[in-house]
This record gives sequence, C-alpha cells and structure tokens, in this order.
Amino acid sequence: MPAAHSQSAGTAISPTRADDFAGWYQEVVRAAELATMAHVRGCMVIRPWGYRMWELMQAELDLQIRARRHSNVYFPLFIPLSYLQSEASHVEGFAKEMAVVTHHRLDSVNGVLVPAGPLEEPLVVRPTSETIFGRSMSEWIHSYRDLPMRLNQWCNVVRWEMRPRVFLRTTEFLWQEGHTAHDSEAAAMADALDAHEMYRTFAEDFLCIPTVPGEKSASERFPGAVSSYTIEAMMQDGRAVQAGTSHYLGQNFARAADIDFLDRKDERQHAHTTSFGISTRLIGAVIMTHGDDDGLVLPPAIAPSQVVIVPILRGESSGAVLAYAHQVAAALTGPDGINPDRVLVETSEQRATDLRWSYVKKGVPVIAEVGPRDLASRTVTYRVRLDHHALRTAGFDDLRAAMAAALREVHEGLLQQARIRLREGIHSDITTLGEMEQFFRSRRGFVLGAWCGEPDCEAALKPLAVSIRCIPQHLEAPGEACVVDGRPKRFSALFGQSY
Amino acid sequence: MPAAHSQSAGTAISPTRADDFAGWYQEVVRAAELATMAHVRGCMVIRPWGYRMWELMQAELDLQIRARRHSNVYFPLFIPLSYLQSEASHVEGFAKEMAVVTHHRLDSVNGVLVPAGPLEEPLVVRPTSETIFGRSMSEWIHSYRDLPMRLNQWCNVVRWEMRPRVFLRTTEFLWQEGHTAHDSEAAAMADALDAHEMYRTFAEDFLCIPTVPGEKSASERFPGAVSSYTIEAMMQDGRAVQAGTSHYLGQNFARAADIDFLDRKDERQHAHTTSFGISTRLIGAVIMTHGDDDGLVLPPAIAPSQVVIVPILRGESSGAVLAYAHQVAAALTGPDGINPDRVLVETSEQRATDLRWSYVKKGVPVIAEVGPRDLASRTVTYRVRLDHHALRTAGFDDLRAAMAAALREVHEGLLQQARIRLREGIHSDITTLGEMEQFFRSRRGFVLGAWCGEPDCEAALKPLAVSIRCIPQHLEAPGEACVVDGRPKRFSALFGQSY
Repeated sequence: MPAAHSQSAGTAISPTRADDFAGWYQEVVRAAELATMAHVRGCMVIRPWGYRMWELMQAELDLQIRARRHSNVYFPLFIPLSYLQSEASHVEGFAKEMAVVTHHRLDSVNGVLVPAGPLEEPLVVRPTSETIFGRSMSEWIHSYRDLPMRLNQWCNVVRWEMRPRVFLRTTEFLWQEGHTAHDSEAAAMADALDAHEMYRTFAEDFLCIPTVPGEKSASERFPGAVSSYTIEAMMQDGRAVQAGTSHYLGQNFARAADIDFLDRKDERQHAHTTSFGISTRLIGAVIMTHGDDDGLVLPPAIAPSQVVIVPILRGESSGAVLAYAHQVAAALTGPDGINPDRVLVETSEQRATDLRWSYVKKGVPVIAEVGPRDLASRTVTYRVRLDHHALRTAGFDDLRAAMAAALREVHEGLLQQARIRLREGIHSDITTLGEMEQFFRSRRGFVLGAWCGEPDCEAALKPLAVSIRCIPQHLEAPGEACVVDGRPKRFSALFGQSY
Repeated sequence: MPAAHSQSAGTAISPTRADDFAGWYQEVVRAAELATMAHVRGCMVIRPWGYRMWELMQAELDLQIRARRHSNVYFPLFIPLSYLQSEASHVEGFAKEMAVVTHHRLDSVNGVLVPAGPLEEPLVVRPTSETIFGRSMSEWIHSYRDLPMRLNQWCNVVRWEMRPRVFLRTTEFLWQEGHTAHDSEAAAMADALDAHEMYRTFAEDFLCIPTVPGEKSASERFPGAVSSYTIEAMMQDGRAVQAGTSHYLGQNFARAADIDFLDRKDERQHAHTTSFGISTRLIGAVIMTHGDDDGLVLPPAIAPSQVVIVPILRGESSGAVLAYAHQVAAALTGPDGINPDRVLVETSEQRATDLRWSYVKKGVPVIAEVGPRDLASRTVTYRVRLDHHALRTAGFDDLRAAMAAALREVHEGLLQQARIRLREGIHSDITTLGEMEQFFRSRRGFVLGAWCGEPDCEAALKPLAVSIRCIPQHLEAPGEACVVDGRPKRFSALFGQSY
C-alpha cells in the first residue's frame, strides 16, 4: 500500500468513512496493526499495538474494580453441560453459540489424526461464567458474615459467531467478568448499579466515549437476569455499540447453584447475585468513535505511545540529532512527566515521512520530529493527531508543559467531539413507525421515543434491524403514544441499529 | 477444622511434611485458600490469595520480558489440527493430551442438550502455541530487517492430565509463552539462553528458589525443539520441579510454518525460532520449597499482604486501638515504604488468635498484633513468619525500619534455607545403578552422576521413576563411567524424581 504512505494521496485510509464505513474500519484495524482475523474463523490475533491498548484499559479498570473490594480469581475454561442446564433461560440464551469439547486425545488412524478419548459428559468452553462461579460460591458462602462476596476475573470466553467482525463480534474474545453475591436485593442492586456507573465513567473519562446509560428491555436482557444495565455508545456511522453491561440476577442463579446462607435470624436464604463485564469489543468502539480518514485516533490514556519522536537522521548531524531526540524524550519523562514506557524514540531505517504516517495511522496523540534545525534552535517540531497537518514548535524548556497541554487537548477534543456527535445523533422528533422506517432507511442514529412496553413492538422493528438499545436513565422522550403502535407510553426508549 | 486454629494442636497443618508430604501439600493449598480442584476433573479454581501470588509473579516477569524487547500479543485459543500436524514430532508429543472441540452448538433433542453443528475440521485447545505463532510470523516476516521478532503472551493452555495435582499438573493452567524469530542460529540461541537465565534469576531473586540450570537430554526435550533448557528446583521432599523452560527450535517450526526472510545477500532463508514459558506450576514450587508444618511461607515479593495488622478490639479501648492500627499501617506505607496494597488491617469479627493462625497458614511474612498495651506504649508487637511463636516489639518511630528488616530477613532466610537444602540434596557419590536404586528406594534428592549419553540408560531408570532432570551448566560429576551401564562418560547428568 505505498499510496497510504504518501501525503499526496489525500487520505491515508481507503475507503474513507463516508464511502464505506465498514471497509474503513477494517482498513484502520489493518493499517494500525491492531489485529488480524486469522487461523480460525471468527478468532482474532491481537497484535502488539492493539494488545497494549487492551492492557492499558485492563490496568485502569482493574484498579477501579479492586477499589470496589473485588478479589481477582481464575475459574476453569470448561463448564460441565449440567451446570449450564441448571438455569433454563441461561442455557437457552447461549446454546446456539457454544464450542463443545467432546474428546481429550488424538489418535492416529492410518496416519490421520482423529479425535479420541470421548468424554462422558461434553464440556462447554465458557461463554460466561455465572454457573461455575455460582457452584463455588455455594461452597464458600454459609452465613451472612460471608457476604457480600465480590470476585472478578480477566479471561477469554467463546461464543460461536456466524458473522464475525474484528473486535466487535468474535468467536473468542477477552473480557473481565465480575460476580458478586449479597444478602438482599437492595445490596445486590446497589452493586449492579455501581458497576454500571463505573463503566459509564470509565468509558467517558478514560476512553473519551460518552454513552447513554440505561436498562435493557426484557427481550434484550442477559439470559437469566432479572434486570440488565448497559452503556450504549454511538459510532460515527450512527450505529450503537453496547459497551459494558451489568446485571442484577435476582435469586435465579443462586437457586440453580444452591448459593444460600443463614441470615441474622438464623434462617436459610438464597443469595442475590450480580455480574458485569466489558470486553475487547471496546477497542472496536474506540476505533469507530475517534478514528478519522487518516486512521486511528487514540485517547491519550490508552495510547501505547503518547508521544513518538522521529529524529531526522541525515549525514553528519545524525549522531547529534539522535542524542538530542533522546534528550527530548528524557525531558518529557521522569517524575510527574509522561511514563517512560509511553514515549518512543523511533530510529528505524524508514523515511521520516513514512514513519510519521505510520504513527498517524496508529493514532499516536503527539508525533514530534527532531532535525538539525531543531537541534540548532533547541526546539521541537511536533504535530497533534487531531490536526496533524499543522506543525507546532516548542522550546526545549517548555517541552513538558507543551506536551502535557497537547495530550489534554487531544483528550478533551475527542471527548467534546464525541459528546456533540452523541447529542446531535439522538432524535426525539419521531412519533410513528412510518417516520421511524423513513429515518432508518435514509440515515442512522438513535431515536428517543415513547414505548408502550410490549415486546410485539420490539418485534415489529426487527425488519428494520432496529432494537431498543436501552431505557435511558436520564433522557425523557416527548410524546405520550408508543412510536410503534400508538398505545400509551410506559417507557422512554432509545432505538437504534447495532453491529 | 477447629484443631488447626489452636496453637495447642502443635502444628496447624495435618498431616505434617514428615508424615505425608503429598497430604501436607494438599492441606496447605486448602488451608491457605489458594485453590480448589473443582467442577471439571483436572481443572482448578485459583482463589484470591493464590491468584494474587500469580499476579505478582506476572507483574515482575512481564517487566523483565518487556525489558527484553518483547511485545505482548494474544493468539487464538483454538488451533486447527492441520497446524499441529505440520511439525510431526510436535504433534506426536502432545496428541495424547489434547482437548478437542468438535461442535459449535447445542441442540435440544427430547429435552436433552446434545452437541450439534459439527465442525469440518476439529479444533484443538492450545497445549502451546508455536504452530499458530509460526503461521502469523510467516506473514509478518519478509526481510532480515523484520528480525528479531519477539512476542509474548499470557494465557491459559490445556493439556489433558490423567493424574492431576493442584498447581503441579492440571489440565488447564495459566502461563506465559514467549516466541521469537531470528536471522541466525547464534542470535536465536542467545535469546533462548537469555530467557533461561531470566528464569533462573527470577526464581532465585523473586521466589527465593535456587535452581540447577541445565540442558534437557534429547528424550526430555520439548517436542520439536533442537535443544531445551530448564531450571530444576528441589522440593523439601527431594523431588524435582521443572520450574521454567526455554527452547531453541532450530528451523523446525520455521520450515513447518514457512517463516522465511530475505537475508542481507537477498537470499531466502528459514528463520531460527525459540520459545520459553513458565506457568502456575511455580505456585506449587513456592509452596513445596518454603512451606512448613504451620502452612504456607511466602517470599515477601509475592506475598499478597506483606504485613497484616490484627487489632485486639476489646471493650472501651476498641476505637482507640483500631485508630492506632490504622496509624501503624499508614506509617508503614507512603513513599519508600511498603505498597499500601500489601499492608492489611484485619478487622473481621473472629478471635485475634484465630485470625493470626489463618494468616500464619497463608504465609504472611509479618503479622503484627496491636492492643491496648501497644497503644499505651506506642509500640507494635509482631511476629515474623519464619519463627512465628516468637514475639518481637518495635517502637512506633522505628516501625518502618523494623518491618523492612523483617521482610529482608524472611527473604534472605528462605533463600538461604533453600540454598542449603539444594546443596545438601545433590549427591555425587553414586557410581552404579545398584547404588542409584538403593538411594532412591530409601530417600530422595538429586544424584549428580556420569552419563554415557545413551537413551537406553535413561530408559533403564524408568522403573525407579528416575529421569535425567538436566545436564547442569555449572556442576561436574566425579567419575568417568556412566552410573547406569559403566560406558565412558559423555555428560554430567542430574538424576531425580519429579512430580
């Protein structure tokens, strides 16, 4: 793709967002070297740049989860089929997408390896772990004194995906799953809502992704939950991404797994449980929220390199320029500065222009170029990713402040841009099914409308590929008649199309 | 187990190490709440205390691996059967222990869920990832400029285990696997040996586990490797634990996966690859190296809590004592102090003696008790795990220094003890098979002896359950005749029994 390396090509990514958003997305993933869909249908290889983004998300969220008195644990990858069957609606929800292990050996038959050692009971590769956490909780919990119990794990899960799409819908993905048990509905609900709020602030403050928080409708709930909460983000093409969910599971899983305890009156009760999770799908949400026609644009908090310094090495000044580049890096780091891991001096043999473009596509917030002239004037020339065609200059002594300001500018710029897009993308002027049809045929976005609360109205939207994303917590739809069938409004609903 | 909570029971763990080492091990794992073998045969649930040990190991080793210019990545859990088959000796080595996914759905047949959606090609749950890394490397590597390539992943792997034992041999375990590709044998070998040395120093400096580093014999090599390096640790019962291995894979995997590149002369060559890994087995090694008849004993570097403070809360002094306990904790932490995460003020409602014993069994390096008398005299009474029946006292103003010294004392005491045990456990005075038989019938340990290098001598030791643990790098066996069959010595070999 030499065109992608040339500024004269106009845009680095082809196609553009406007031409073909899905194609643009795939090309950004490729050009930024985030991941490849390879080897096994629906599974991805997460490459160093993409994986580092995930590690940075993990590090921050793990702190927040631990601050909420969760302990990290690790549960088995394999779940006995019988566990899943103990919660009927749960297994029904996942049965169509489960990888099943049936053998534990390969035998060579006429030189061909075939599965052997059939298992007595097939094992399912975990699609989620409520049932297996539940069984252990039932062993560990005896009294109200053992509650609340809060456990979390970071792991891989598998949900067989017929229409895979990198990061957004993959057969295997990485995620975090929190599981808690409590002595009352109120206590459990408080934890579910606290996780919900944690996700909302994490997405907004860390990923610069504002979302609409709300409750899922009954038909969109997690299989087996009493209530599910979601944060819904809007991508640049107007589609919705469910960016993190938390669930109040009532006593459903506690009954299925016998999680019970003696309460303060010495009476036996079933615990109330919750679960909550976010996944590598968030990487997809970051790409589609912030990316532009030149590639990925990264919120500084998850940029593997926040500042890349490209020394212009030519002829006899090379040694001095390289030394100066390292001086610049050193000036940026140190106590109260940027983490040394997040400043890169790029010294590979490629042309400086090519290098710069590769980091533009990788979404690096600040790209500095340091050449003989910068050395002579003790300045640094740099570009901020939001407007990377503009050159800026900072004196060596102002470097740290200038870079800190540039990173703040990127963070605030991305957040602001996404907030405006979300606000402008929510349409409250649609009052009938006909208008809804017309809207989603011509464009995309969210529709905030009245809903009677009946599932048949949700079903009626299926041909439009529209679903209720959530019942928003802080948004009120105008109108008193259900936008689908005109019956009296029971809820304000956010309608949209998802990936 | 009320007996375990009472000091008068003599020992907290029953059986003792001397009575039944394997039973003692299981009981320590249970009493310290490290893990349970549950749900699926051979798979473990790693509980908070055990998982935190793993996280602390991970954090340190990840830094060291990153400092060696590795990038973390994530590859799919599932490997197509055809990939494994491309390296014949590799698949042969793992065929007997592979979990095989054959279906991607469950269907309900007469109310019973049965595997459905058969896969065209069965998928293997990764037992290790050389073959799948190789395929991607072949796409990413084109020229010598792309080399060396160094990738690392932290993940779960599955090797079906017929005789499972918690942490030591489990069907699923967590590990780190590094994979590198190079333009020459020398460069690859340097990386393999560097990983080997990294493991040796990590085990010794961080886990207080001295090891014998060396090369594996041909029959003990990683399937498909040209040479394998290991660090062998000796447990308190004299058995060997292979604590970390690194492999020079030659061009075997590069040929199988087509990892080739244009060299500086523009000629196409196969890359030389390496791999290396450590796993949750290390937790087992820590238990069996340092544990005593009162339970786990933790090297401070991997102690989830380095210091636990138990306030003695009785009557009207309770409030003041609790406040004082928090003052003590605050005095220990802060800049240059102990990480606040690693100091715990334990305020649960149990009796102080029970609490103390539970932390003794969990191996906490320093357990402090703070009561009304300590408050009055502004002192702290504490116990160091190595000798936890002895009470020590420190003044409030000397606290930080006293605790730092206590942690150093534990670190150095454990290391010293293990070093002496390893040194004294290596026997160089055995010169015949008869003597070897006699030795391993009556006791355990390592035998350092001459070996002719022939595999039939290794085979002859199988009835004794003895194997060559390694050809040590720094130890020379006396004698010139193979201890098994008397043929001329080619190698000094370390013989031992493993788990």
